[in-house]
Parts: sequence; structure tokens; C-alpha cells
Amino acid sequence: MTITLAQARSILDAALTHARAQDAQPLAIVILDAGAHPVAFAREDGASLFRFDIARAKASGALGLGADTRVIATRAVANPAFFQSVVAVTGGQLALSPGGVIIRDSEWRLIGAVGTSGDTGDIDEACAIAGITAAGLTHGAAS
Amino acid sequence: MTITLAQARSILDAALTHARAQDAQPLAIVILDAGAHPVAFAREDGASLFRFDIARAKASGALGLGADTRVIATRAVANPAFFQSVVAVTGGQLALSPGGVIIRDSEWRLIGAVGTSGDTGDIDEACAIAGITAAGLTHGAAS
Amino acid sequence: MTITLAQARSILDAALTHARAQDAQPLAIVILDAGAHPVAFAREDGASLFRFDIARAKASGALGLGADTRVIATRAVANPAFFQSVVAVTGGQLALSPGGVIIRDSEWRLIGAVGTSGDTGDIDEACAIAGITAAGLTHGAAS
Amino acid sequence: MTITLAQARSILDAALTHARAQDAQPLAIVILDAGAHPVAFAREDGASLFRFDIARAKASGALGLGADTRVIATRAVANPAFFQSVVAVTGGQLALSPGGVIIRDSEWRLIGAVGTSGDTGDIDEACAIAGITAAGLTHGAAS
Repeated sequence: MTITLAQARSILDAALTHARAQDAQPLAIVILDAGAHPVAFAREDGASLFRFDIARAKASGALGLGADTRVIATRAVANPAFFQSVVAVTGGQLALSPGGVIIRDSEWRLIGAVGTSGDTGDIDEACAIAGITAAGLTHGAAS
Repeated sequence: MTITLAQARSILDAALTHARAQDAQPLAIVILDAGAHPVAFAREDGASLFRFDIARAKASGALGLGADTRVIATRAVANPAFFQSVVAVTGGQLALSPGGVIIRDSEWRLIGAVGTSGDTGDIDEACAIAGITAAGLTHGAAS
Repeated sequence: MTITLAQARSILDAALTHARAQDAQPLAIVILDAGAHPVAFAREDGASLFRFDIARAKASGALGLGADTRVIATRAVANPAFFQSVVAVTGGQLALSPGGVIIRDSEWRLIGAVGTSGDTGDIDEACAIAGITAAGLTHGAAS
Repeated sequence: MTITLAQARSILDAALTHARAQDAQPLAIVILDAGAHPVAFAREDGASLFRFDIARAKASGALGLGADTRVIATRAVANPAFFQSVVAVTGGQLALSPGGVIIRDSEWRLIGAVGTSGDTGDIDEACAIAGITAAGLTHGAAS
């Protein structure tokens, strides 16, 4: 099972709507499939140039370690050497900030991840979760 | 001047509509801004895994050399050593097949590029051009 | 909007003049356009070998995150794990020291960035700002 | 012995003057020192995005193999496999087209190289040579 383009675009559109309703900074939002390959992406006008790469690294990091990047970033505070080595080992596929969120279907199967970047990690993550929920899907790495 | 997200999504949607009307193979379509940074992207269900990277390398190659990849690919037949070295010099930012198309605004200013991959180069390029035209923009590297 | 070569060379020459007037250590100074591509560069005699790469990474980091590297470096003290991961995610396009300064035109549009390296971060940054100001442009990431 | 910034800028300015007198396409021109590190660079308005990387790879390729890229490109026609492997081995530090020209001082000592990109290889090389000559230096890899 992996996410469809229709699901990915639903998440993307709802996350963008949430970002504008919250008056967030300009965001980049990417949806990756279960194999960490891009399915859909948008960068809002005015978002700075690294936002695609950071958003993607949040989503791929969540998939790569099987946890939302909020959880990973917290673990990294306690064990920075290991998590920095994972960043290097994977060629930079992990960004240590909230906003990488695993997507699950109605049967709790992992089908992809969202990555967002542009505002604080908290706001980035809220936009990702709003998108997933609005699309009728579920987020989170553990039940 | 560079492309807006609204323009990029108009191109993307119209290119996808054209692809389905033509019964094309599943495509990946990316729109880059004038500095070759991603603005919008979609990969259709069933498109194989390299399609994002190839589509992006068509678009960045067109921007990088200032010509659609149809033109570049033709030149590469006559001078393969140089163009293969450009692929390596740029870290793989050039794919030598039609489907990378420069986007211009109403005043002929370069504002970005589309890259498509998934079917033949001819069909990939036709979808890119259909998207640009439907969005009220102009394509091509020379007047 | 992006910077012209004439503007970039004005910044470069004025920054070099300022550096010599201050008796700064030998500097490397690069000006990037709004898409983070090099427009003009000079490395003074005696500047060490990393200076081009560091100067470029200061300028691209400022553009990539939408803030001068003085601001970014301060944030990195509070959240080192995230910013180190951004360095890796972007393939080393961010150097965490003052001297990467965003360039704005008279209408506050972002048109590029200067990066300087060779002396302390404070002196590097002062030379970058002196160059931007002498060229009749404005610096800074927030109004 | 290596090139000074003053010499490098003399070459750069004279090469740009020659390019405009010839009505060449917009060029990127880089001068590297004897260790293949950048000393001076300019990209003319309208030059496409890869031109810095290609110009640099011409200059570094000339230094790396001890011959102007015109000579290297001719050899590559006869032995493409070897020269493509050199491109890969060096991480893309060689572009197989004229325009990478070794710079020598009055005592025939190698002090750096010029790389130019933007027009045909012949025109690129002519601009490089015009710059070296106008700066009172000598070009060429063999006496």
C-alpha cells in the first residue's frame, strides 16, 4: 500500500489552506510515498530556497526511522552523536525538526509521509497534520 | 521575474489533463523557478521511481543551458563527449531527452521551466507544452 | 528581479576597498543571484583555500533560509541539531558564521546575497554590508 | 608562483571587453590559480545557470591534465572511454570543450587557468586567450 496522487494532493491542498488560515510564513510542503519517493510538492511564493530540501528531509527522515520528526528531534537532544551520524550516513535525508509526519490509512498501514518547512517546527507540523486529517487519513507512528 | 505557485499549478494541472486525454503512460511533472528550484510537482500513480529525478533534470538542464532539452539532446548527438561531461560537472542536473521546456511570460522573460518524464520524449514534451500554453504562458528558448 | 553583473561588481569592489581600509585579513567575496547562482567573485592574495567555499556557503545559506547568517548562527546556538542537519541536507550550502548578507533593491525585493570569508565573522559581515551600501542597495532580511 | 588577484581581474576585464566587442553570447568567465582554486569570476546578465560550473570545469580540467581543453577535447574524440572516466574520477572537474586555457607568466611558469562558457567553444576560447594576452601573460600548455 502506498499513497495515491489524489490523496497526496488532498493533503497538500488542505495543508496549504491551513497555513493561509493561520497566516503562517510561506511554506514548502512535500508528500512522499512509502518508499520515500516524491508524489506531490508545492512551494509558496516567498518561501526561501532550502525549504524544498528541508521539507523532503523531514518526510524522508520520518519514514527512514519510523517516527515523526518531532519524536526524532527530541531523541536527538539526548543522543546527538548518533542522530548526526544518521544524517551523514543517509546523505542528508533527515532534518531534525518537527514537520515530518507519517501518514497512515484507515487500517493503520503506513502509506507515506508529509514534510513541511518555512515557519517554526510547531507550525510546520500543525499544517502537515491538518492536511492529513482533512484528507481522511491518520497520522502518527505508534498506536 | 520568476514563476508563481499559482502559475506553476496551472501548468501542472493542464499538463496532467493533457496526459490523461492522450492516454500517456503515468508521468512525473515538475515546475522549477528561474533559479532551478522546485515550485510544484506531481507523480501519477504507477509512474516508476526515477521519474521525479529525470523530470527535474530535464527542467534544470533546460534552464542551465538556456535551451529546451529537445534542442540539447540533438546537439548531444553531434557532440556526446561535451554533453556527457556537462551531466557530470553539474552533478546530474541534465537529462538528454525532450521534455524539459523553458517557460516565458508575456514579455518573453524566462520565468522557469517544466520537466516531464514517463512516456516517450515526444509525448513528455507535448504534455509540458500543453500545460504552459493552457496557463497563458509561452515556451521556447529563442524568439 | 535579480542582481545584475554591474551591481554585483560594484558591491565586490566596494567591499574590497572597505577590507583594505580596515586592514582586514585577505578575504574571499562572492555575490550570488536570487537563485543562489554565482555572479561575481574575488579572492585576495593570501586568502586561504577554503575561503571561496565558505563565502559561497554563507551567501547561499542566507538565501536558503531567508536570513543573514548572523541571525542563523545565533539560532544555531540554541538549536544546533537542526542547523547541522540543514548543512548536511543541503550538501554543505550553509556556513554558520556572520558574513552572509541578503541584498535587497530599493523596493525591498530580494535580489541576491553577498558572502565574505577570511577575517572574523564580524569583519567579514561589515565588509559585505559596506559593499551593499556603497552600491546603493539595501541589506537585511526583515523590514 | 601563482596568479595574483590583480592579474586575474585584468584577464577577466579584457575577456569581457573582447566578448562584447565580438557580440558573443552572455559568458561566464573564471580564473583559477595554479592549485585550481577560484581567484576571480563574473557571469554576464543573461548567461544561463550552468555557465559557472562549465567554465570552472574547463579551467580545472586544463590544469588537471596540463593541456588546454581544446587539446583534451580532441584527444577525447579518439579515446572517449578514458576521458569520460576522468570526468567521473574527478567528480566532474573536466568539461570537454575548448575554453579552458592555461596561463603562463613571462618565464613560462604555469600560474593558473581561465575557463569560459556561454558561446561556442571556439568563441569561448578566443575570449579567454584575448584576456590572457591583454593582461601581458602567455597561454598554452607546450612551448
